[in-house]
Amino acid sequence: MIRISLDLMGGDFGPEVVIPGAAKALERHPDITFIMYGMKDRCEPILGKYAKLREKSVFHECDVSISMDEKPSQALRRGRYVSSMWRSIEAVKLGEADVVVSAGNTGALMAMAKFCLRTMANIERPAIAAIWPTLRGESIVLDVGATIGADSQQLLDFALMGGAMARALFEIERPTIGLLNVGVEEIKGQEDVKEAGRLIREANLESLEYSGFVEGDDIGKGTVDVVVTEGFSGNIALKAAEGTAKQIGAYLRSAMTRTLLARIGYLFAKGAFDLLREKLDPSKVNGGVFLGLNGIVIKSHGGASAEAFAAAIDVGYDMAKNGLTQKIENDLKRYHAKRQPPIGPEAA
Amino acid sequence: MIRISLDLMGGDFGPEVVIPGAAKALERHPDITFIMYGMKDRCEPILGKYAKLREKSVFHECDVSISMDEKPSQALRRGRYVSSMWRSIEAVKLGEADVVVSAGNTGALMAMAKFCLRTMANIERPAIAAIWPTLRGESIVLDVGATIGADSQQLLDFALMGGAMARALFEIERPTIGLLNVGVEEIKGQEDVKEAGRLIREANLESLEYSGFVEGDDIGKGTVDVVVTEGFSGNIALKAAEGTAKQIGAYLRSAMTRTLLARIGYLFAKGAFDLLREKLDPSKVNGGVFLGLNGIVIKSHGGASAEAFAAAIDVGYDMAKNGLTQKIENDLKRYHAKRQPPIGPEAA
Repeated sequence: MIRISLDLMGGDFGPEVVIPGAAKALERHPDITFIMYGMKDRCEPILGKYAKLREKSVFHECDVSISMDEKPSQALRRGRYVSSMWRSIEAVKLGEADVVVSAGNTGALMAMAKFCLRTMANIERPAIAAIWPTLRGESIVLDVGATIGADSQQLLDFALMGGAMARALFEIERPTIGLLNVGVEEIKGQEDVKEAGRLIREANLESLEYSGFVEGDDIGKGTVDVVVTEGFSGNIALKAAEGTAKQIGAYLRSAMTRTLLARIGYLFAKGAFDLLREKLDPSKVNGGVFLGLNGIVIKSHGGASAEAFAAAIDVGYDMAKNGLTQKIENDLKRYHAKRQPPIGPEAA
Repeated sequence: MIRISLDLMGGDFGPEVVIPGAAKALERHPDITFIMYGMKDRCEPILGKYAKLREKSVFHECDVSISMDEKPSQALRRGRYVSSMWRSIEAVKLGEADVVVSAGNTGALMAMAKFCLRTMANIERPAIAAIWPTLRGESIVLDVGATIGADSQQLLDFALMGGAMARALFEIERPTIGLLNVGVEEIKGQEDVKEAGRLIREANLESLEYSGFVEGDDIGKGTVDVVVTEGFSGNIALKAAEGTAKQIGAYLRSAMTRTLLARIGYLFAKGAFDLLREKLDPSKVNGGVFLGLNGIVIKSHGGASAEAFAAAIDVGYDMAKNGLTQKIENDLKRYHAKRQPPIGPEAA
């Protein structure tokens, strides 16, 4: 049984999307139980329509809902202890849930998650990991925007956490890791990235295989299982890629409707186009994973559809089932044990 | 007449691509004359095949050619004063050419260009500007990898230079400018970007309209004419977008050949696909522009085809014809005059 806690009020549509999304996820994974947090008058009527889901869920009433444009500090002040967002995270802290999924605003969710769950021992900064569709399947990219800038030690932490997530998600034993860099040689400013490369290589980690530097176009190629970078460039890479996918989609639609021949061709090739649409469908890959906290938090896109929200629940389900937090903790422990070997009897 | 200096040895294919590319560009712009630098035995046989081009060109023999994997410092040591790369840049410095185009390696080209042409007064760092196809047409993105990191004043310089380039390239009077940022509020590390926004707004520039922050997906939308960022994230955005375009191209090809119906559909819609291919054709948009130097340097992709190299020459032609360097110099002068108003008679 996997216990998933849901912030019903998160996202652009709140319970209208979260509840149907949960129902879809439950069909795929009948061993889920849900703990739900939301405003009674908005949630109960919708929940009433899903008898099976209702049966596998406990609903908790909350009077406070965090809005999508609320600043993190404001959200914390107003919503700590009482909001659906806070309480759904708290369920993980209290051991009542294995993972929390929210489509709420990223800044507020991260602020509350940090405040409530705290970062893991030896982790300075949490990261947001994205699942990126590639020509070879899927890769993990982190950090895509939890914090800006990262020193070499933090990049190594990201590598460790991303590696653990790859093992949990893709079920591969020793994922390959690359550090995102620019190709130009000998320009200043890459010191942290270069130093991180040295640190990771020297750490000689059992849990991952370090493949060196990768560039922006390696992400889509699937050159490595995990791409590590600091949050500013990671966020920009993610959004630039999303923008390009939308742009090409728009070109394609306009090209396919421009002439009669094109429209006829489209009809013949509709199956192929449907396949392509599925490949590019953002609802198939949804769910940023907050790494480095004492508990698993999954962030769904705010504008996600029910199908997409269900995909985010799937990610949370997999992460919990495969013991993501334990995997990260073990990898960190192993790394730090090697790094600072106990000396003399006092160390025991 | 526009005088263009060419490094015939640059790029993966050297004169085999550069010379045919020049011939193509000359067909489009009969008012070009070329000054060419390269190794005699490799260039002359090819040049001999293009009578018209030969007529409009002066060929200079060079014994040294910079390789694509040579480090900038090594290239400078070995190739200064003597290589085809150096001498083609020097032609601009000596006033013999209006612009230089090279497909040589970026690091070496930038190092030589900086050493030979020097940065403009009041510019600390040059930038590489890319022309980015968008849903609205084209935008300029800089810096895409000349230097890593940029403080607020340097970002303002990039905005000024990018604005001048937009006026030269798109022939619009007051281009819109956005600063690339991440959407999350209140996270630390954006100080330089925020401060740059304040500086640009307060500078109240006549030459551009500041539109505030933009995110990675705004680039492809064409939200603004010029997107300003530091070189690390700019390079990663560019490559991530290129990677995504290639990835979708691969999906599309595989979808369209998978079934008989899809192949039939493809035949009907071939015109539409050709149009799409043209939209996505990297050879249509080629040519990074080095900004902030005392002279115009255009960098073509190393793997460019003759058609793509011709496109890079087109960019150089437009930049020279529209007086890019003068536009930048004027904008800088105006900005700095406003910033430090002369006080008392000594200032004159």
